[in-house]
Amino acid sequence: MDFPISRLEGGVGAPLGFRTAAISCGIKNPAVERLDLGLIVSDTPCTSAGTFTTNRVKAAPVRLSQAHLRKGELRAVIANSGNANACTGVQGIQDAKQMCHGVAKPLGLKRSEIGVCSTGVIGLPMPMVRITPKFDELVGALNAGSGNPFAKAIITSDTHEKEIAISFDLGGHEVRIGGCVKGAGMISPSMATMLCFITTDANVPHEELRKGVQEAVDESFNRITIDGDMSTNDTVLVLANGASGMPPIRRGGESCKPFREALRWVMLELAKAVVRDGERVTKFVTVDVKGGRTYLEAKKVAEAVCKSALVKSSWNGGDPNWGRVLHAVGYSGARIREELVDILYDGKPACLGGLQAPSAMEELREIAAQAAFNITIHLNQGSAEYTMYSSDLSPEYIDFNRSEYAYWKQARKDGLV
Amino acid sequence: MDFPISRLEGGVGAPLGFRTAAISCGIKNPAVERLDLGLIVSDTPCTSAGTFTTNRVKAAPVRLSQAHLRKGELRAVIANSGNANACTGVQGIQDAKQMCHGVAKPLGLKRSEIGVCSTGVIGLPMPMVRITPKFDELVGALNAGSGNPFAKAIITSDTHEKEIAISFDLGGHEVRIGGCVKGAGMISPSMATMLCFITTDANVPHEELRKGVQEAVDESFNRITIDGDMSTNDTVLVLANGASGMPPIRRGGESCKPFREALRWVMLELAKAVVRDGERVTKFVTVDVKGGRTYLEAKKVAEAVCKSALVKSSWNGGDPNWGRVLHAVGYSGARIREELVDILYDGKPACLGGLQAPSAMEELREIAAQAAFNITIHLNQGSAEYTMYSSDLSPEYIDFNRSEYAYWKQARKDGLV
Repeated sequence: MDFPISRLEGGVGAPLGFRTAAISCGIKNPAVERLDLGLIVSDTPCTSAGTFTTNRVKAAPVRLSQAHLRKGELRAVIANSGNANACTGVQGIQDAKQMCHGVAKPLGLKRSEIGVCSTGVIGLPMPMVRITPKFDELVGALNAGSGNPFAKAIITSDTHEKEIAISFDLGGHEVRIGGCVKGAGMISPSMATMLCFITTDANVPHEELRKGVQEAVDESFNRITIDGDMSTNDTVLVLANGASGMPPIRRGGESCKPFREALRWVMLELAKAVVRDGERVTKFVTVDVKGGRTYLEAKKVAEAVCKSALVKSSWNGGDPNWGRVLHAVGYSGARIREELVDILYDGKPACLGGLQAPSAMEELREIAAQAAFNITIHLNQGSAEYTMYSSDLSPEYIDFNRSEYAYWKQARKDGLV
Repeated sequence: MDFPISRLEGGVGAPLGFRTAAISCGIKNPAVERLDLGLIVSDTPCTSAGTFTTNRVKAAPVRLSQAHLRKGELRAVIANSGNANACTGVQGIQDAKQMCHGVAKPLGLKRSEIGVCSTGVIGLPMPMVRITPKFDELVGALNAGSGNPFAKAIITSDTHEKEIAISFDLGGHEVRIGGCVKGAGMISPSMATMLCFITTDANVPHEELRKGVQEAVDESFNRITIDGDMSTNDTVLVLANGASGMPPIRRGGESCKPFREALRWVMLELAKAVVRDGERVTKFVTVDVKGGRTYLEAKKVAEAVCKSALVKSSWNGGDPNWGRVLHAVGYSGARIREELVDILYDGKPACLGGLQAPSAMEELREIAAQAAFNITIHLNQGSAEYTMYSSDLSPEYIDFNRSEYAYWKQARKDGLV
């Protein structure tokens, strides 16, 4: 960014005029005490915007939050981990409505002012019997302090909570943006499998917020992939309450560009954090495609490379295997010319004009052995570029994802299946 | 098939008028004695047809075999394992030409009558120094017996050779089809990563053979996936020499349909064998999509399910995880309706109308625990169908594919890099 920002503590709780809460309901397993239900509320009306999974199979909370956003502006969000409330039919919609209703009443808000998000196992009904009695406790726990407990309440197979908060000057007013995100499997472009919540006390008119969010999501969450699977629950929700006291951002005004830039930066930081904390991930790989004929072709090349099981296996092994990268470039669908392609690891050529470069293999191996490195793929056909952020695929990822039977057993105990 | 066939021994050597040979050159590792160079020759002129990888990055032998097929008919094929001769530029083309030339001369054939195929590591030059001195030995080893040594010479990470041969009656004449194939990684639709060679003594005019091969490949090798990666070297080559003495197959004649059917059956058997012998594969899963709006949508659904890392991980774990299957159906790009989808394991419903079916989980788990099972996905939107043959993804696959550094070290020893 070309203007100064300051890092803040507190994640989504950092912007002025927001309160957050998180409690434990035992949604996944009643025997385990962990935060699994969270709430964000703005003290004053907000503008709001969101993006959602493009999966045709959409979880009930996704459908309901979309409907609420269409009706007007959100002012609060309730979110849970431990159950995705996906593939749950009419009952799922009822349960999502009950979650909104349960906090709307004590908050004195309309149900349609509440966004709702769920993440966890697919295809099992929500254990509402353990959630419904907790709504008053949740609202009672609201406080203006750190949003860290909320960030903890939404994670599933993530190894840690992921949050960020910054402040910066916007036309003479200090404003804040806070955010948190959860990953960590089913991560693929066109909305990674994740929930992301952003709060800001900037004063952002609805249409400006909607555009800024779409642009920021396109350049952050839509550019990461861990396993190539797209979730049923992906959601980004952004609330802007204007509590910083700044005047409304005007389209084309001096505050417009820096706000968008800051929002994009925050989302990109969170998106990268999702990749780094991907299920059993050991490498963070940035793939820069350059010299493409078109933006779309550059994107196809980046996606094919970042989703290839063979490429990801070689990353896991720390092998600078440019042949596998080139083979994925070849089947990407882009009209590349093999004899023009250069492939570089952290700037060191591994392949020049489609052939092994004279670089020392030892040096390339040292680069690929790092926890994070860059691969530049130069197609040498034009000036289009695309960047993606990806991870390796590890034997441990598959071990981890072999079975969800334990969830089913708990649902049977709960009398839900 | 609706007519009787007999199984034969001998693979590509079984049809009349073909001779085969296989020798050891130490292409991958000069210290290891294993068959790695093979030859198939017809005693008389042939008609020939082939299909090749659609990867834009094409190995030198793919480019040369395509050119030879365009020039006329092939009568022999030379194939090696241990090096793919891919991403090897002008030198690679020279080396592939030399392989054709080296056997064409002692066989008394034109270079353009020879097909050439290579499989193995990408991006390293062919160690011609160990191959060139062996051409006469290879031709001298030709014999009319079993094609089994040839089938052994083309395998790489396959655990065993895969071959088939059948005989059947075609308009009163006994004809034979023999085939062999190698897998076992980089397997994805639109030509699996593999080499397949088919010989037949049926009398098949060029145009009829070309059409029959295209149709058979579409319904066999283009319907399998192991890891979703598409190779640079995929090749199917079919040689028909008419040595059975039958009259030429006429388009629309009585022999036309049974020949195509037998060819398709042979290729499908070989394609299934490739999946079963996929790298570190433990499950063979047939995915039948039914009730699609269009053929293309049914295909998209089957491909999304068969390529999903999460679905494949659950197959590895023997988990009848219909929620993950449905989530992949949802992001396939087909305009499915979640509430219409049924998912069955070996005919037992796991999901009905997008919701958990009342079937006993224990029974579904027993099905998914088998080494082979069927998943039927009924979209209930139309009558289009598509079937794919797929495998699980195992932690061992990734372990196996972590590094190809050993190849590079050998190439360095050989003075090639």
